[in-house]
Amino acid sequence: MDVIGVSSQRRRQLVDVTSFVQEAVAASGVEEGVCHVAVPHTTAAVLLNENADPAVGDDILAALAAMLPAVAWRHAEGNSDAHLLSSLVGHSVSVPVSAGELALGRWQAVYLLELDGPRKRELWVTCLGG
Amino acid sequence: MDVIGVSSQRRRQLVDVTSFVQEAVAASGVEEGVCHVAVPHTTAAVLLNENADPAVGDDILAALAAMLPAVAWRHAEGNSDAHLLSSLVGHSVSVPVSAGELALGRWQAVYLLELDGPRKRELWVTCLGG
Amino acid sequence: MDVIGVSSQRRRQLVDVTSFVQEAVAASGVEEGVCHVAVPHTTAAVLLNENADPAVGDDILAALAAMLPAVAWRHAEGNSDAHLLSSLVGHSVSVPVSAGELALGRWQAVYLLELDGPRKRELWVTCLGG
Repeated sequence: MDVIGVSSQRRRQLVDVTSFVQEAVAASGVEEGVCHVAVPHTTAAVLLNENADPAVGDDILAALAAMLPAVAWRHAEGNSDAHLLSSLVGHSVSVPVSAGELALGRWQAVYLLELDGPRKRELWVTCLGG
Repeated sequence: MDVIGVSSQRRRQLVDVTSFVQEAVAASGVEEGVCHVAVPHTTAAVLLNENADPAVGDDILAALAAMLPAVAWRHAEGNSDAHLLSSLVGHSVSVPVSAGELALGRWQAVYLLELDGPRKRELWVTCLGG
Repeated sequence: MDVIGVSSQRRRQLVDVTSFVQEAVAASGVEEGVCHVAVPHTTAAVLLNENADPAVGDDILAALAAMLPAVAWRHAEGNSDAHLLSSLVGHSVSVPVSAGELALGRWQAVYLLELDGPRKRELWVTCLGG
């Protein structure tokens, strides 16, 4: 398992981590298989989306904030919205590995979704296959 | 990695792809393991849900549309709702493989979730195990 | 594939299943890899979140209920909300395995998310790696 350190600068932020994950795939020696990218956190997530137009990421962050329901949160730390979105988006993604490289679609990139930053975060990367 | 072509007919649509995925599992020769089914797209997703009553799929599509927040999207292509739902639902599923077959529950089927169709889409299927 | 039986007591409930999954990892003999935890159900889900403060789980359940849109469900069984949330949260999680143990972050636990209980449910656990 490869551990990658990532820093966020804002409360909610998408951080493109594709190149770090690709390096972990290369280091693993796996040629054909699947790469699993997880955060060991409960107020962050991992997702795939477009990296061509930065407005897509802005729209995703704005929409996630706008979807938050007006509930009387009981958790005293005040970050239940981050816990909720972490579980909805998911703490990990799995991406195919083909010919020793991360097999992403033309527009896909891998993002850490920070939901309660700024913080230092980790990505745990595990490659399976042969 | 097996590449499966799928066509959608509407902007939002659930396309049952279970039989195609099952064929990829059989061709892989994997008897016990996990099958990873991904889209290389950022405006589509993959999910598991019920295939018995088609009303379930209709309800899921109607509910996803109704959950979309009223934000002023910045992305000029006008499909930020599709990018958002793609990341929320997820670009892939992993399903157990047992005795050489996709191990699905009695009511489960694998669906491509089209969010910005009609389009030609791909599924990338990778089976791991022995 | 290990099959774990779990019972829920309420319509919507988070059931901590971490210890059962950890037992399945130990029994698998996998030292380094990934553990896949799935439900064979279409009205339940699996997620990772905090296990320290039970208010986090209460907040997640309250927020998921509050996010449900007011649509005229067509599915006659009256549990389309459960089908929707099952696909949004996801029917499975994958967790790294390191040194023969489930590699969870300090605050992470694995939960079955019951969405249409009380019921008897199953978890299907598959460990990959060496």
